Amino acid sequence: MVEQLPGMAIRRIAAYAPPTVVSNATVAERLRQEMAKLQAQLDRDLTDDEAAAFRTNDKWIRRFIGFRERRFVAPGEGTIDLAVRASRLLTNLGGTAPSDYDMIVFATVTPSCLYSPPDAGPLQHQLRIPEFVDGIPHELGGMMISLACSSWVAALRTCYAFIRSGQAERILLIGADAMSTTINWRDRAFACVLGDAGTAMELVAVPNVRDMFGPNCFWSWLGGSQADIITTPVGGSRNPLRTAEDLRDYQHCLTMDGKAVRELMVEFVGGPGTQAALHKAGLSLEHLDLVTLHEANRVLNGDIITRWRDQGFRGNIIDAGGNFGNTTSASIPLALALNPDALQVGKRFGLFGFGGGLSACFAFGLITSPIEVITEL
Amino acid sequence: MVEQLPGMAIRRIAAYAPPTVVSNATVAERLRQEMAKLQAQLDRDLTDDEAAAFRTNDKWIRRFIGFRERRFVAPGEGTIDLAVRASRLLTNLGGTAPSDYDMIVFATVTPSCLYSPPDAGPLQHQLRIPEFVDGIPHELGGMMISLACSSWVAALRTCYAFIRSGQAERILLIGADAMSTTINWRDRAFACVLGDAGTAMELVAVPNVRDMFGPNCFWSWLGGSQADIITTPVGGSRNPLRTAEDLRDYQHCLTMDGKAVRELMVEFVGGPGTQAALHKAGLSLEHLDLVTLHEANRVLNGDIITRWRDQGFRGNIIDAGGNFGNTTSASIPLALALNPDALQVGKRFGLFGFGGGLSACFAFGLITSPIEVITEL
Repeated sequence: MVEQLPGMAIRRIAAYAPPTVVSNATVAERLRQEMAKLQAQLDRDLTDDEAAAFRTNDKWIRRFIGFRERRFVAPGEGTIDLAVRASRLLTNLGGTAPSDYDMIVFATVTPSCLYSPPDAGPLQHQLRIPEFVDGIPHELGGMMISLACSSWVAALRTCYAFIRSGQAERILLIGADAMSTTINWRDRAFACVLGDAGTAMELVAVPNVRDMFGPNCFWSWLGGSQADIITTPVGGSRNPLRTAEDLRDYQHCLTMDGKAVRELMVEFVGGPGTQAALHKAGLSLEHLDLVTLHEANRVLNGDIITRWRDQGFRGNIIDAGGNFGNTTSASIPLALALNPDALQVGKRFGLFGFGGGLSACFAFGLITSPIEVITEL
Repeated sequence: MVEQLPGMAIRRIAAYAPPTVVSNATVAERLRQEMAKLQAQLDRDLTDDEAAAFRTNDKWIRRFIGFRERRFVAPGEGTIDLAVRASRLLTNLGGTAPSDYDMIVFATVTPSCLYSPPDAGPLQHQLRIPEFVDGIPHELGGMMISLACSSWVAALRTCYAFIRSGQAERILLIGADAMSTTINWRDRAFACVLGDAGTAMELVAVPNVRDMFGPNCFWSWLGGSQADIITTPVGGSRNPLRTAEDLRDYQHCLTMDGKAVRELMVEFVGGPGTQAALHKAGLSLEHLDLVTLHEANRVLNGDIITRWRDQGFRGNIIDAGGNFGNTTSASIPLALALNPDALQVGKRFGLFGFGGGLSACFAFGLITSPIEVITEL
């Protein structure tokens, strides 16, 4: 009787990015300033090896990462502000009021506050979703979901479980990150890459024949043996931030072994990971009309796509064009929102989240009804 | 055809707490030391108002919070270590190997690392769940879920959605927090309260007739208008930690307006919140044999229960007895694990998560099959 379960459709997508554009040249200049500060702190010149971590320029970033610019939040803004702006864009489309949502599923790795409050609370309040109606508490689900670079697809999969199981009919899915607040400015690896954006998606229950997904359309993987290649040395519960030196040295910020990430992820997503997920879904690469990969590095993604082409992939790439950086939980829905004309009914798509953990979460779907898109970028 | 969907049963619960016992007297002494440090820093005596934040003793904590002691992780240990220990206890029961799980759902507000890796990755690795079998990636779902004090029930609800929708058959649900790492030692409000523990639960798909829950058995609420009463001033994306002064002053640690929390939560959980959730589930307070409330403050919980008694509640309270503090994502499963004899087949239970956000997530169920329990406390 599985045929009678509800399906899930993406009804609308909204994307917002803050107005402050940060060019590759600006990133390179900031790294130069930080190198000078470190030299002053050490009272000596850096060795060539030490200096390499700071050395970059526009040409290098375009060549090895494929990014041109990114956006940064203003001081005092955080993930909640990105989420509120994106959610209000959705509301601007009309038809759905914030109080029509059963649930807020909020994907982020950069919550506005550590520990509490979870951003879902302030978002409910800022969207004026009522807390009580006629004295009776207004039911509203909420949760924060994260899985590093795979956060958004993991959250999408969770929304599918809630809708498919009849526990929700209309979900506000947020994918938002203020990654600029996590940058170690003594290390070009992430400094050249990270950016900020917020997205909001309206997901609705539909009859099973119009399901855009299906229970076999999601596939997940964990590779914790390589967890150390994208990590944050200090600031979590295992190694709390306790010294001014660690703060000064950006030890509470993200670090990455870019070479290892590239080798592992190109091999995995370009080969057995994608093949295993397609096999579960009963698909092959030839079936995919549109694909969106988590945009951590467009050169890395290009290498994955080259491998896919060799295996029969003939579809189109939907991406953010290197103009927004790696926005983590926002990256895939941002890319979709930037390419509304590609989201045609009848197109079969693949969404590929992968990165820290290591983790991967992939989703395949078919656009069964029009998707409305609104952006403020 | 809803009758034919799978249900979910709690098969096993494991709970672990680190061996370092911290008495109320030890907490009070640490606060006194911090007060002396602050006086030295300011080079003056504190005013009476300032000193009040540091003033406590065993009698005060027992009277106003109802806690006797709590456990703290050792230096270098974090949430991942609590989760690994609890998960291995589950495995020690035999019958289920770690590789039998489809998914790791990890509830915590204190991830071992900020941003990446998500603890689900290192947990998979430490449990030796394979990443590849015969060269093919081994499918394994994973995600981190948080909703402040309501994290664990929100994660339980998510597990129900995955199992009910047929997307998972056996889930490892972790509820673990190293709350000692979040303490502002200049403020007794949380310093007297927080503790560390890890729990692991095996949740399995069962025929609908043995479902311990049901789609109407979960109820959630957000009250973001009061988000500021449990918050962390600095360290999230909206106000990143940037100065040594903020670090010294514990601005990156949890803060609470205890009076406001108490007034709001006793009123809400003791009245309309619980009534709304019971109404949805088709139950009333008389139906509940066993209840477990998030153990943030046993005196506050006592006031809630007094209100419930006035409304017809005649069941038993399952709690941790004030011996483990507020362990956030571990608190409800820890209380269950501490009272195995109460978990009898045929008993109807209520689980009540509430706190920061503000948030609430409640679950009602019926024990339809024996629950195995193992602890190392």
